[in-house]
Amino acid sequence: MSDTATDTDADRTCGAATETETGAEEAAETTGPACGASTSDTSVSSGASTESTPTDSSGSACGASTSDDSSASDASTSSCGGSNSSTDEKVAAAVDDFEADPGRLVAVGLGPGEPSGMTTRAKAALREVDQIVGYTTYIDLLPEEIVEGADDVYSTPMCGEVSRTEEAIDRTLAGNDVAIVGSGDPNVYALGGLALEILESKGGTASAVDFEVVPGVPAAQSCAARLGAPLVNDTVSISLSDHLTSMPTIESRLHAVAKEGFTIAIYNPWSRKRRENYEKCCEILLEHRDPETPVGIVHAAGREDEEVEIVELGELPELGETDLVDMTTTLLVGNEETYVWDDRMVTPRGYERKYEY
Amino acid sequence: MSDTATDTDADRTCGAATETETGAEEAAETTGPACGASTSDTSVSSGASTESTPTDSSGSACGASTSDDSSASDASTSSCGGSNSSTDEKVAAAVDDFEADPGRLVAVGLGPGEPSGMTTRAKAALREVDQIVGYTTYIDLLPEEIVEGADDVYSTPMCGEVSRTEEAIDRTLAGNDVAIVGSGDPNVYALGGLALEILESKGGTASAVDFEVVPGVPAAQSCAARLGAPLVNDTVSISLSDHLTSMPTIESRLHAVAKEGFTIAIYNPWSRKRRENYEKCCEILLEHRDPETPVGIVHAAGREDEEVEIVELGELPELGETDLVDMTTTLLVGNEETYVWDDRMVTPRGYERKYEY
Repeated sequence: MSDTATDTDADRTCGAATETETGAEEAAETTGPACGASTSDTSVSSGASTESTPTDSSGSACGASTSDDSSASDASTSSCGGSNSSTDEKVAAAVDDFEADPGRLVAVGLGPGEPSGMTTRAKAALREVDQIVGYTTYIDLLPEEIVEGADDVYSTPMCGEVSRTEEAIDRTLAGNDVAIVGSGDPNVYALGGLALEILESKGGTASAVDFEVVPGVPAAQSCAARLGAPLVNDTVSISLSDHLTSMPTIESRLHAVAKEGFTIAIYNPWSRKRRENYEKCCEILLEHRDPETPVGIVHAAGREDEEVEIVELGELPELGETDLVDMTTTLLVGNEETYVWDDRMVTPRGYERKYEY
Repeated sequence: MSDTATDTDADRTCGAATETETGAEEAAETTGPACGASTSDTSVSSGASTESTPTDSSGSACGASTSDDSSASDASTSSCGGSNSSTDEKVAAAVDDFEADPGRLVAVGLGPGEPSGMTTRAKAALREVDQIVGYTTYIDLLPEEIVEGADDVYSTPMCGEVSRTEEAIDRTLAGNDVAIVGSGDPNVYALGGLALEILESKGGTASAVDFEVVPGVPAAQSCAARLGAPLVNDTVSISLSDHLTSMPTIESRLHAVAKEGFTIAIYNPWSRKRRENYEKCCEILLEHRDPETPVGIVHAAGREDEEVEIVELGELPELGETDLVDMTTTLLVGNEETYVWDDRMVTPRGYERKYEY
């Protein structure tokens, strides 16, 4: 199991990086990322619903293009994500701009990112709605029958989560039943909260749109499954992205949990912009834990270049320079009791202190 | 949403308590709990496989009875769980006691505890195996077609997880493909690690049984979905059960994370034996957080007496005396930014500091 790059079993995926919308975040860090929203007409009833929303004049920085081309990654050259300016994505339309009675809004967690990792409820929710909104990478993961069954599918590649979430809400307020999708779970570094915040800012209410969250399997759990049983005791999930949380806060949190024997799932460990965060994280972990502490690394889970490795904490710093640790990687750091056996990472729950076996 | 006791929507469940096997743990705390393993013959091919295991003479304290009665909750009076003695559950049979080539062993997370919360992969895994082993409460949650499709289903009500896990492993070593099931995820206070530990103690290897973990939606995520978006930033899960972790350790962990602004999912908040742990936990949280901090309480998720409430941290101590907080409850404690809006609990991810909306 030290290298499962060739493991293409679609049923065993994590989807770690996509859950955290790393793509969207990365877009802000590169020059002139491709950004274009694509509305793919998937059935005869599409179009009308799109016309009923005032989105095109809402002032979203990320231009929505309505076309039959679902692979519009480079169909638009709007500047969404090109800077970190606070006015880059501004929500404009309010609830009073819509004449229709609002539809339903469902935030759906797709889980590991493969259809087999979705729950039955998630699939049913996507079949129930008229429209599906999401980052292109996630939309591409949906079962074909679900995409074909929707009146309209709106996807934005490498584009801001704020404008995409606003798009979903505008469509809901215009009277459509809408699902906004992401891999993992809507409550894990994802859009559940943003949807409610934007809804509030537009003068809508969660009750009026019958807001529902459909949970999914988070990346930490999907990745843990691939490694064995690394997280079966008290666990923390922490993101190294300082896009929305300051680095001093992240450092302080790392110190606190590394000291206390939690197993730690680290999201967003590395990016071109954030390599110091990774280095600092390694330094803090090594301050509190033995260099031999097992660390599970899952890279590009569920993709062709997937790799699953178990290394020692002391090796982490140098791995920051390799392809194994990048923005698609999730790290699972063991505690003082974690051990490796038969290529599996095991954190005992404590039974061995209670029972003989 | 302050009281959804009447919400019987089977699609929106948490299954919080079952994930942590509270039942099994509770059994050790009461006098003379019902303990009897039931093997329900579900198809013509059963029986033979059971006979090929040496389980009946393995010395498990929890007597396995093979019968056609799948509701054998009180069919046996063996003393499993009646004491905390370390020899109460002793693993006896070793890999050399089995003549057959071992089968496969799969630890399957059922998610929220309702069929609609299971992933497609989990259902497929259960269809692929010959036998299914689990706590009666979880087995009862399985779709009928899956139970009927299995050669044999072995369930133990209110009985020790060690003997049940050993049973699953003995059956695997005897040549059967076996799934051991639990609600939530196998990595969240569950049996993933125990299965590997017992396998090792018997001289088996994870590779030899092609050990696989199929992840599920953890209770924290299922419960968070019911509350809105309470956990969308760095989050910790912590159990108040001192059965396998000492109370000083639990207290120290609570102090550390309460100080650092994590949202906190609390598993196993209360039991007849553990009420002081709950009181101590409230005291620690109130030491570091405002009494007005929102706390989501999900009781008996997915069951008839389900209740979902959002309260203030300051109210928690007195709620320990009510039916709302018991061994079937999960608590989600907000951080300093968490607020309640339109009966939803929202922890902002930080977008509002970056974007105008």
